[in-house]
This record gives sequence, C-alpha cells and structure tokens, in this order.
Amino acid sequence: MTHAPPRRLQTLMQALQRLPGVGQRSAARMAYHLLQHDRDGALQLAQALQEAVQGMRHCVLCHTLAEEEVCPTCADPTRDASQLCVVETPADQAAIERTGAYRGRYFVLMGRLSPLDGVGPDDIGVRPLLQRLQATPPVREVIVATNFTAEGEATAHVVTQLASALGLHVTRLARGVPVGSELEYVDLGTIAHALADRR
Amino acid sequence: MTHAPPRRLQTLMQALQRLPGVGQRSAARMAYHLLQHDRDGALQLAQALQEAVQGMRHCVLCHTLAEEEVCPTCADPTRDASQLCVVETPADQAAIERTGAYRGRYFVLMGRLSPLDGVGPDDIGVRPLLQRLQATPPVREVIVATNFTAEGEATAHVVTQLASALGLHVTRLARGVPVGSELEYVDLGTIAHALADRR
Ligand SMILES: [Zn+2]
Ligand SMILES: [Zn+2]
Repeated sequence: MTHAPPRRLQTLMQALQRLPGVGQRSAARMAYHLLQHDRDGALQLAQALQEAVQGMRHCVLCHTLAEEEVCPTCADPTRDASQLCVVETPADQAAIERTGAYRGRYFVLMGRLSPLDGVGPDDIGVRPLLQRLQATPPVREVIVATNFTAEGEATAHVVTQLASALGLHVTRLARGVPVGSELEYVDLGTIAHALADRR
Repeated sequence: MTHAPPRRLQTLMQALQRLPGVGQRSAARMAYHLLQHDRDGALQLAQALQEAVQGMRHCVLCHTLAEEEVCPTCADPTRDASQLCVVETPADQAAIERTGAYRGRYFVLMGRLSPLDGVGPDDIGVRPLLQRLQATPPVREVIVATNFTAEGEATAHVVTQLASALGLHVTRLARGVPVGSELEYVDLGTIAHALADRR
C-alpha cells in the first residue's frame, strides 16, 4: 500500500482486533478516538491489561478468575463443602448468591460447551472440575446450574455424566414458571417443562 | 456488593469501557476472553497502546496522526504545494490517494463538525487548518473533500468560509459522489470524476 497508516497505528489497530467483536472498522475508530481524545484512557487500559494478566489466575478450587490462589468464596469456612453448584460464569454465580438461598460451594466453568463455535470440554473447566470432584473434603451433591439454553443443556449433560461416573448425587435447577408470574403470560415451553418437572 | 469481581478484573472492565462502543457487557466479555484465552493478546494490546501514545502525534503540516513531526506525504517534495485538499479522516485521504488523480497536498481534519454530539470547530483541526492556510509556500486552491453527509456539509461550510476569508480559491468535490455516502466506500472512478469536476 502506498498510503498505509503509520506503523504504530497499524500495530494498535491490529492489537485491538484481538478483542472479541472488534473488526477492522471498530479497531480504527477506537485507535483514533484514544489517540485524539483519550490518551489517558489508553494508558490506563494498557496498565489495567498488564496488571490483570500479571495478577489474575484461576482459583485452584472453583476455577473462577481470582487474585488469590483460593478465592474469597472458596476460602469462606462457613460454607457447606458437601454441596457443589456448577455454573457457567461468575455472573451466574453472582445471580445465585443474590438469592441468599445457597450456602454451599461453587465451581465456575468459565464458559459453556459450544461445538459449533469450536468450544469443547477442554476449553471450559471440565478437567479442573474432575479434579475438584475428587478433592477433599468430599462433595456429596453436585447441583448443575448451567443456563437453560441449548449450549447450557449440552454443558449440563457433560457435567452430569462426569459427576455420575464418580458416584456423586447430581441435581439440576428446576425448570418452571417464574415466581410472581401469571400462567397466561408464560411461554408454552416453560409451562410444558413445569408440568413435566412437577413434584 | 457482596459478590463483586476481583479488583484488577473490575479495573480492566472499567478501562475497556473507555473504548467507544464498548458497554458494561462487552467489556466483561472482552476481559474474560483475554484473561482466559488470549493473555498474549492482552499484553500485545497493552504494549501497542503505550507505544502509540508515546510515538504518535499530529503532523505539523496536515494534522494527520504521524510518527514524525512532518508526515511522509507532507515531506514528499514532488507534490504540488499550491493545492490543499481538506478531508475528514486518513481513510478519506487514502481513498483519494488510491485514485492517483491528485498530486497536491492534504489537510486532515481528523473529524467532522457534529453540534448534536458536541463536536465543535475546536474539536476538529480547524485551528491548525487556519495556521496551515497562512503558511508558506502559499496555498492557492483549497479543495474541500469532506463527506457529502449533513455533518460533512456543515464542516465544508466552515472550511469554505475560513479559506474564503483569507482570499483563497475554494472548490468542492463535484457531486459525482452519491449524496449520503462516505468516501471510504465509493468506487475509484466516481471519486476520480468528482475530482476532475470540482468547482
Ligand atoms: Zn474459588
Ligand atoms: Zn502531514
């Protein structure tokens, strides 16, 4: 190209495209914005990236990203070690925590199976989950709390098989009608599942 | 919050939201992706940001982002110094360069007027343009090549007034360029004709 952008600008645009969802055009817009209007922001982002890469790791017990070898939730001695709730993401874990209805331990897969996107068991925390299930103190119940999407269900299937093979008691969050909602306005699939899962 | 993400992760998510078009959800997705699957990419991005902030400045002649005080295009002695083509962005400049139909100089505003978004003359290179128009060797013709959008036309109006006030001959790209389109995506022939038919 006879009229290529300067090298450092090109390097920045390429590096920005490593971010998920950022293509060539967004990367250019981001690069120009930072260099023209927010150089402080650019330097803050650079530092935040370096500190996160240096300081964040997977918790050896629950696999979530943490600053410590054992994250604060896993380090809490008041939580019931016999229950292990398996979730896809820290956001899902936070949603369950907000209910205040669960006081056991967690395992955070940090992803979900998605064969179409090339996400297999080795790309999410299935291997560390296997280690976790064999650790002491022993887990007695595995609560599968992956999402009720196709990918979440596929992930649930793999987790269930793994835990069952180890002789553990496996449960799944109930599918049903949301509390406070009227049947008239609930979608058919949810009602059908609520009927099938009635207890 | 009882279950907040670790501090370094929060800092990274906030820093990513300084990027235009990146909200809370995208920032979280980006942070997790980098820390789980592309730590090399994160460090490369950090370095690219720092080197770009340190090494990129505005060319003192044409106002584009450059690694040198005077960019390669402005430093080219074979280009006609009596013609100055005013464009919004480096991408627009590159589109004109690709036609091979123009051998004069450029001024890159690095933006366009957009009063609704709070972008006024001081936010784009109007002040450095005024200096440029008064520099030697003298410019005789100012070719206004801002986009044929509402914002581009408003920008063209300001540039035209400025150059006219200095007694310079001002032309505008002919409307061979489809109204409402951006130069970056217009075919070469149309741009070449618009250059030839400038008035
Ligand atoms: Zn943990
Ligand atoms: Zn220049």
